[in-house]
Amino acid sequence: MYSSDLKQRIRYGETDQMGYVYYGRYAEFFEIGRTELMRALGMTYRELESRGILLPVVKMHVKYIRPVAYDELITIRTTLRTLPTARITFHYEIFNEAGDFLNEAEVQLVFTDSVSRKPVRPPKDLIEALSPFFPVST
Amino acid sequence: MYSSDLKQRIRYGETDQMGYVYYGRYAEFFEIGRTELMRALGMTYRELESRGILLPVVKMHVKYIRPVAYDELITIRTTLRTLPTARITFHYEIFNEAGDFLNEAEVQLVFTDSVSRKPVRPPKDLIEALSPFFPVST
Amino acid sequence: MYSSDLKQRIRYGETDQMGYVYYGRYAEFFEIGRTELMRALGMTYRELESRGILLPVVKMHVKYIRPVAYDELITIRTTLRTLPTARITFHYEIFNEAGDFLNEAEVQLVFTDSVSRKPVRPPKDLIEALSPFFPVST
Amino acid sequence: MYSSDLKQRIRYGETDQMGYVYYGRYAEFFEIGRTELMRALGMTYRELESRGILLPVVKMHVKYIRPVAYDELITIRTTLRTLPTARITFHYEIFNEAGDFLNEAEVQLVFTDSVSRKPVRPPKDLIEALSPFFPVST
Repeated sequence: MYSSDLKQRIRYGETDQMGYVYYGRYAEFFEIGRTELMRALGMTYRELESRGILLPVVKMHVKYIRPVAYDELITIRTTLRTLPTARITFHYEIFNEAGDFLNEAEVQLVFTDSVSRKPVRPPKDLIEALSPFFPVST
Repeated sequence: MYSSDLKQRIRYGETDQMGYVYYGRYAEFFEIGRTELMRALGMTYRELESRGILLPVVKMHVKYIRPVAYDELITIRTTLRTLPTARITFHYEIFNEAGDFLNEAEVQLVFTDSVSRKPVRPPKDLIEALSPFFPVST
Repeated sequence: MYSSDLKQRIRYGETDQMGYVYYGRYAEFFEIGRTELMRALGMTYRELESRGILLPVVKMHVKYIRPVAYDELITIRTTLRTLPTARITFHYEIFNEAGDFLNEAEVQLVFTDSVSRKPVRPPKDLIEALSPFFPVST
Repeated sequence: MYSSDLKQRIRYGETDQMGYVYYGRYAEFFEIGRTELMRALGMTYRELESRGILLPVVKMHVKYIRPVAYDELITIRTTLRTLPTARITFHYEIFNEAGDFLNEAEVQLVFTDSVSRKPVRPPKDLIEALSPFFPVST
């Protein structure tokens, strides 16, 4: 298991007239969560793309538990529970400053060749960076 | 079952650098899909809110099957498969102009009292407008 | 002068907690306004890009006169007051259903070669399509 | 003069298919810029709203000088050049990590009573916090 926390302050433009963050805006929180998880592993999304690998999202499940308001400082916890194959699945938990659990999600992406648009294996260096966190059971 | 189709043209601002609609923007397509389904039933979201009923989203599942590009004209098909209780679940299928199936989703919302913030029964007139489409099996 | 009107219904996701459209979302209204103006002239943005011409925005001026709420049906009036050179300037007026004047804006873009990233002349067919609306004064 | 710097990393969802930040998304950068300027002065937007003061935007001028790409770390410099009256005007300069000047803007907002929706004087404590930075010329 590998996990990474990111703090983010809610923007006014992320709220809607209900007075809380619009349900569609969480996708950006998930995106920046996995971006920073990968950066912590010594790799960036940006680099991946420059190597010809795209990571389109193929699945997203979100459970909205408590709403979150403007200017609150949230913690986006992003977790890899399994080593990626052609697919990589991120799990998310979002908390507010008081530690209340706000949101739970799962987002799955596919390593894709930018030219052929076919699925490819995950980059070796990503697997190597992750393997210490996923000991082989015997 | 009750279903409603809405056509929508993809905005440039909805794309990302991968050249397709950003995965987080589909939430707005789902939102306008259910807005128009309700309008077709003679009721609007806006009216609901003015009657003191909010409809926060509690769950969203999305399956991204094919990407969609700028300026394409999509069809958002919104379907109610069951009569709402305190919860209302919308199913979505999105197609491009060629009829290709792009996206499948499910979004669940809860009728909520705007003051107490507690779940409430769905409005009677909504149930009445829907009931002809949900014949009681005997 | 050449003008084009587009109607658009305000999405919930476009509002913020003040209860009106977020000031940053108008840029999308301007974008779809000019997209439809060009389509009415027999040309699309999408085609332009496929010919290797990009149209980055270089200037935007917006005057917010009256706010606009969720579910309102606005009219986006897009006007070309002068023939484009390497630059093209769109003027905007937005109205609500009651005809109230909501918003006034000016957006300037530059015809840009997608490879060299240098400014280029506007496409001949665009100028030809526009010239009947811009009679030469004598 | 009072100035405040904020660093922000560009999100994937903020780019469009041109490969750079969509021109409409800068409004959020400006918004978080002024939010942090006010926080540095010991006051928050959120507090202002809870005191019954809204700050709708009435004018925005933006000059897009250089584009900015995904994952770049920008600096949003927000400046108050004059003491606010019923109107408050923020000036913006945005830079990339290399120090290149990307964007220049001006956003004007009006202190507004949330009930009467009429313009009001700026809060005394805001003026007091700002006055040391705006010495009276003699």
